[in-house]
Amino acid sequence: MSQLFQLAKTCPRTGARAGMLTTPHGSVHTPLFIPVGSQGTVKTLTPHDLESLGVGMILANTYHLFLRPGVETISRAGGLHRFMSWNGPILTDSGGFQVFSLGHLRRVSDEGVVFRSHIDGSEHFLSPELAIEVQEALGADIIMVLDECPPYGDDDRHIKQAMNRSHIWAERCQRRHNREDQALFGIVHGGTFLEQRKQSVDYLTSLGFPGYALGGLSLGEPKDLMHSMIDETVPNLPEDRPRYLMGVGSPEDLVKCVAQGVDMFDSALPTRLGRNGALFTQKCRVSIGNSHFKGEVGPVDHECDCYTCRNFSAAYLHHLFKCQELLAYRLATIHNLRFIVRLMEQIRQSILDDTFAAFKDDFLGRYQPTDADVRVEQKRKWLDSRLKKQHLD
Amino acid sequence: MSQLFQLAKTCPRTGARAGMLTTPHGSVHTPLFIPVGSQGTVKTLTPHDLESLGVGMILANTYHLFLRPGVETISRAGGLHRFMSWNGPILTDSGGFQVFSLGHLRRVSDEGVVFRSHIDGSEHFLSPELAIEVQEALGADIIMVLDECPPYGDDDRHIKQAMNRSHIWAERCQRRHNREDQALFGIVHGGTFLEQRKQSVDYLTSLGFPGYALGGLSLGEPKDLMHSMIDETVPNLPEDRPRYLMGVGSPEDLVKCVAQGVDMFDSALPTRLGRNGALFTQKCRVSIGNSHFKGEVGPVDHECDCYTCRNFSAAYLHHLFKCQELLAYRLATIHNLRFIVRLMEQIRQSILDDTFAAFKDDFLGRYQPTDADVRVEQKRKWLDSRLKKQHLD
Repeated sequence: MSQLFQLAKTCPRTGARAGMLTTPHGSVHTPLFIPVGSQGTVKTLTPHDLESLGVGMILANTYHLFLRPGVETISRAGGLHRFMSWNGPILTDSGGFQVFSLGHLRRVSDEGVVFRSHIDGSEHFLSPELAIEVQEALGADIIMVLDECPPYGDDDRHIKQAMNRSHIWAERCQRRHNREDQALFGIVHGGTFLEQRKQSVDYLTSLGFPGYALGGLSLGEPKDLMHSMIDETVPNLPEDRPRYLMGVGSPEDLVKCVAQGVDMFDSALPTRLGRNGALFTQKCRVSIGNSHFKGEVGPVDHECDCYTCRNFSAAYLHHLFKCQELLAYRLATIHNLRFIVRLMEQIRQSILDDTFAAFKDDFLGRYQPTDADVRVEQKRKWLDSRLKKQHLD
Repeated sequence: MSQLFQLAKTCPRTGARAGMLTTPHGSVHTPLFIPVGSQGTVKTLTPHDLESLGVGMILANTYHLFLRPGVETISRAGGLHRFMSWNGPILTDSGGFQVFSLGHLRRVSDEGVVFRSHIDGSEHFLSPELAIEVQEALGADIIMVLDECPPYGDDDRHIKQAMNRSHIWAERCQRRHNREDQALFGIVHGGTFLEQRKQSVDYLTSLGFPGYALGGLSLGEPKDLMHSMIDETVPNLPEDRPRYLMGVGSPEDLVKCVAQGVDMFDSALPTRLGRNGALFTQKCRVSIGNSHFKGEVGPVDHECDCYTCRNFSAAYLHHLFKCQELLAYRLATIHNLRFIVRLMEQIRQSILDDTFAAFKDDFLGRYQPTDADVRVEQKRKWLDSRLKKQHLD
């Protein structure tokens, strides 16, 4: 595979970088936000929608696709790109994060992890080697090593044990990986312990990966702690390799973490917030279900260039959400994703123009996130459990 | 308003007609299928999607929009076209059908009908005059008189009473109607009683409407009875006015009823079937959830030119439905609507080419509807009741 990452510019006042990722399915600019399409679809959107929004790369979850429809179905279709009809770059995770989220439904050993499907309770085994085989069959452009993800708040000893196991697994993944048209990323661990993070960087860079992810962050730890970990980790990573922060996607976090030198991000947050009626605007996140939108004949965000804002009033969106019309979820997803993609474009341009530091201060000075995230997350969990039992009309 | 309907050609061997409807929002070909967008959205689709599918006109329900978001909100937005960002022709019904479907939640008198909202139980009054005022405020291109719709199986006496009341209401609607840029259609009633149907045609044509609907059909009566009523009604309607059969939308019914001289149809069936995973193909309707689609790498319908069939395998659709992904409902809706729109295009072309009779025989000879309609309808009612209590994620 040719060089994955080309660095174009580094901000003289912050750690921000502009660059490009070159994959077998096209090149994409960094800093890059990667929407999540867990089950082979970014919820509510077609590949055509994604292109129109300027989305450069999407993420699919190996755990979900492994269970349903299964590797055989996707292989028979000619791989994940063809199965979902997306011809741009794809990144797959290893499945580790989801498996370790299963709590009592999984058992881990040095060999791998035995887990039960959240769909039908069937038992499965995932090892570093299998995670690579599955990802090779799916055929993403960027794939990830299998890692053990302890929750935030776990004790020092367990975090260290999981990190050491993840290091050995990373090496096993690297040995097993054959496809030269895929870039395999290592994942830095060590929880919120600085010394362990440093050890993890040393170990993984000694193995040499074409890119490095920062794992085990954005798991509920205080934001300051997350930023400290990034600050202490990123400078020790090789300059010519992309840095990928997993699970971060709020506007303010994206701006802050780009300033810390991160190049790639993925998160389900923008699309999930959209489906729950929480929409980004230039000044803050708003709740479209709020009654004051009932008579609002202007768009949700006057400065937005998305299909939703160009064609529909906030009153219409409010109406669709009140009626639980399926179009509501699509229009809101389009808006939120376009907001984030455009934010990344603006960030990149300001880096190239040497104005990123001012852009950052301006954005963080005016943008007010709300505390709705927590409520949305609670609602989502409740809804997830409901959705398993019913269908839609 | 200029002449609404121009007849272009009549089939020499059947009653089929090809023509054109000219409205302030553009001209559309007949025979015409009109998808249902009850709440100001054809479920899952944007106006852009509808255009891409070749949809010429959409129907919106006055009952739904009157209750939510209310006439004031839509007026403030500049009317329904602007509210929902659809610049093509719109037809609104009068609200009568929905109100009379409420059963014990409504009370009818000569003056009008008092009903309770299915959303919040609030009490409302609808009269012929109000039905027109609301439809004038919504601003559709074609609007309907308020009618009383007794269920199929009601006794002769009640059907007659409802018909007589509907006649008087039609006259009151006509008197109240002011907007010259809207065409107000009369609705023929009389249940499945031939003599009453004739009376209804005589009465309504004596009032003189720019178009005539056939109401009170497709309500569960045997199909033969429906076709008999159409056969006995249509020849008595003026040749230069469009004939609109309300509530019909299966492929086989459309072909048969066009042959009987009907020009316009509306139905939620194609879109509802789609959301339930029942997809039209050239030979029959298939259930995409069927396990034999799991490995089907070809499209659902090899002859279809829709976005779904051009880009996705049946296996992918099967996967999306199994996962209850929102994209499933949109892709299936796109397919079913395009199937019906294309069928209407083929019908029209064959009428113009003098080959409609052969087209009809060929289509009805090869197309096998299934009995899934009944099951889908049962499922829908159950789901409707569930959906009122919960939200989506």
